[in-house]
Amino acid sequence: MRLATVRKSCIPARGRERVPATAVKEARNRDPPAAVSPDCRKVMVIGGDGYCGWATALHLSKQGYEVAIVDSLVRRLFDEQLGTYTLTPIASIQERLKKWKEKSGKTIDLFVGDICEFQFLESCFKSFEPNAVVHFGEQRSAPYSMIDRSRAVYTQHNNIVGTINVLFAIKEFSPECHLVKLGTMGEYGTPNIDIEEGFITITHNGRTDTLPYPKQASSFYHLSKVHDSHNIAFTCKAWGVRATDLNQGVVYGTFTPETQEDEALINRLDYDAIFGTALNRFCVQAAIGHPLTTRGYLDIRDTVRCVELAIANPAKLGEFRVFNQFTEQFSVNELAKLVTKAGEKLGIEVKTQSVPNPRVEAEEHYYNAKHTKLMELGLEPHFLSEGLLDSLLNVAIKYAARINTSLIMPDISWKKIGVTPRTLVSKQP
Amino acid sequence: MRLATVRKSCIPARGRERVPATAVKEARNRDPPAAVSPDCRKVMVIGGDGYCGWATALHLSKQGYEVAIVDSLVRRLFDEQLGTYTLTPIASIQERLKKWKEKSGKTIDLFVGDICEFQFLESCFKSFEPNAVVHFGEQRSAPYSMIDRSRAVYTQHNNIVGTINVLFAIKEFSPECHLVKLGTMGEYGTPNIDIEEGFITITHNGRTDTLPYPKQASSFYHLSKVHDSHNIAFTCKAWGVRATDLNQGVVYGTFTPETQEDEALINRLDYDAIFGTALNRFCVQAAIGHPLTTRGYLDIRDTVRCVELAIANPAKLGEFRVFNQFTEQFSVNELAKLVTKAGEKLGIEVKTQSVPNPRVEAEEHYYNAKHTKLMELGLEPHFLSEGLLDSLLNVAIKYAARINTSLIMPDISWKKIGVTPRTLVSKQP
Repeated sequence: MRLATVRKSCIPARGRERVPATAVKEARNRDPPAAVSPDCRKVMVIGGDGYCGWATALHLSKQGYEVAIVDSLVRRLFDEQLGTYTLTPIASIQERLKKWKEKSGKTIDLFVGDICEFQFLESCFKSFEPNAVVHFGEQRSAPYSMIDRSRAVYTQHNNIVGTINVLFAIKEFSPECHLVKLGTMGEYGTPNIDIEEGFITITHNGRTDTLPYPKQASSFYHLSKVHDSHNIAFTCKAWGVRATDLNQGVVYGTFTPETQEDEALINRLDYDAIFGTALNRFCVQAAIGHPLTTRGYLDIRDTVRCVELAIANPAKLGEFRVFNQFTEQFSVNELAKLVTKAGEKLGIEVKTQSVPNPRVEAEEHYYNAKHTKLMELGLEPHFLSEGLLDSLLNVAIKYAARINTSLIMPDISWKKIGVTPRTLVSKQP
Repeated sequence: MRLATVRKSCIPARGRERVPATAVKEARNRDPPAAVSPDCRKVMVIGGDGYCGWATALHLSKQGYEVAIVDSLVRRLFDEQLGTYTLTPIASIQERLKKWKEKSGKTIDLFVGDICEFQFLESCFKSFEPNAVVHFGEQRSAPYSMIDRSRAVYTQHNNIVGTINVLFAIKEFSPECHLVKLGTMGEYGTPNIDIEEGFITITHNGRTDTLPYPKQASSFYHLSKVHDSHNIAFTCKAWGVRATDLNQGVVYGTFTPETQEDEALINRLDYDAIFGTALNRFCVQAAIGHPLTTRGYLDIRDTVRCVELAIANPAKLGEFRVFNQFTEQFSVNELAKLVTKAGEKLGIEVKTQSVPNPRVEAEEHYYNAKHTKLMELGLEPHFLSEGLLDSLLNVAIKYAARINTSLIMPDISWKKIGVTPRTLVSKQP
């Protein structure tokens, strides 16, 4: 699984050695952080107050990176506007960072503002001078982008303009800076051929070329990520920007070693129909049925490690690199069965109920996606086990009093989206 | 060249018969307009005050379509801001439409506003109730999109949001309406394999699928068209929108039969480095050299006919159809030679001067693009002949006193684009 040669030498020493597979699991949390190369020491995490961003910021800080969070906090506003909320009661970003300093002795810088405002982003770059930018700072829900016209437009404007601004900031203020951009496996759609990592070699009428893998995204959100990828690839070629596009699968789980250190560091866990991802929602409700669509999944502990691996092994200047970031493929029905089984072990009777698929996608389709590049860089995946499901279900049980069941069922239809602004208020408190 | 079976019957009768090739040229301007099918009678031309849009609006009006122009007139503002102007002195849109009414007896409705404002677009749709929308209403210059950060962002925001709004307006107010969207051959870049029309069949690891042709656009403008194409394809699938994406080559020429009817109907002819297209600029300056890049070209008289063919043969509901809209492929050096030769005939000595290519693209590359679908629908191309070059050169000679040579040479660099807003004022009046 591990790569014999690592492309650039700023991976921490720990990552360079071949560790026997049996030793890896224990070593993961026990090792003291290794020295970080000065070439990639300062990491700006845009969207660092969100689900993946917060876990990643703490992980990198713990590993010895100097971290700054840039976030407009608009994700918290979405919750207010839609009547949704995280199952786990999260602290404010200010409290989070204060607690992290107490626990770890490490400071994480905070810049609160909107990267669509270039002057704000400019001041972040000039003040922090990052070696790497991890860009989670986008509207990341497909159902949100399909609520109404204004949310569709907001999603594309926000994500595209934010990313263009980041590209200009890198070009202008930190041309050596490595962009690690979060994309999604959903950019590829469900082609009837194997999904490669970003590029595919095509032989056609006797000639051959390696071209960007064709994209068939199926929501305004997923499309915004396709647009980002095309824009980034262009700037790599035209300006010599270095970038890694992480096409991430569906993330599950809530705890990482760092977020578990204190209640004030707890990560968000969304279980509503708009922001909740499949497995997390199943574990909260433990009684919901979905049509059969297969996707790639990964544990949030692997998200944070994948980002670290990308930072530690930067793309070359001018390189546009694409990694498919997931560890296992499941159909939604397979997930439902796993949750049912894990629930039974905990004495919960899990009922499965079928609902119409609100998205426009084939119910059954071929799906075989490659994901070797991060393994080659040293990723040791956390596979979905009954043990993890137990712990996820236990989180749901712990916070059961906070669950609002009216938020769980899909209320957003890909076909019924209209031009009139919709106010989504939950039916019960 | 002509198609034996035409997909839908709303093509005017004239288009359905097989005409001997020798008769076509004369017939083209002489035939009285044929009856237009009520299914596609009302055509909204967004961007109908622009170079392609104005010629298309008049052509469709002449052919018997009921036409409305929707335009913010911002293209005229760009000229004021950049110090550029059309070689041919164009009338205001109000004068243009008044003169057209006088000459043809036909009324073209006018809606002045920005389609990025959804309420404005809504009122256009509700008032006009189009059967087809021809969407030219985008910022259409690659160099403009590469002037500075704010123009890059403007181009993508304006083009993407405008098109999303058009898609929502069709879904909400005219679900049967056929979208004819102007794309560009530049969406494909310069792959080392043949360029197909929108889709390519790929066999990979023993499985086969027909997928969107991989895109490698090379300016923020070209990228915006790639983004549009992905967004439109999604709504065809998700909402059943019908759309034809016309990936147009570089357009040349200025006169169509309708714009020649009166001085007040004259079309614009841009010769500056930002909005001028290659051949038009060569004919104005007749003394300029460019590096060797091959592209597809077409006469503006074919642009207007291609749009008509697309309208008359609509896509099916839910279909996303792509036509490559050009008639010949030339390298820029070949064009320069043609202009030199035509100039000599008129007694002009044409000098060729090499300048660095401001764009980031390979100087020499394989280029073989397919363009059969519009031929199959009955397009009879105007090929670039010495005769046309004579008339283009004669336009340049007629308006020579208006030429400002400082506007001609490229001043926009793909690599030097920065975040500071640039004011481009011409060096001489």
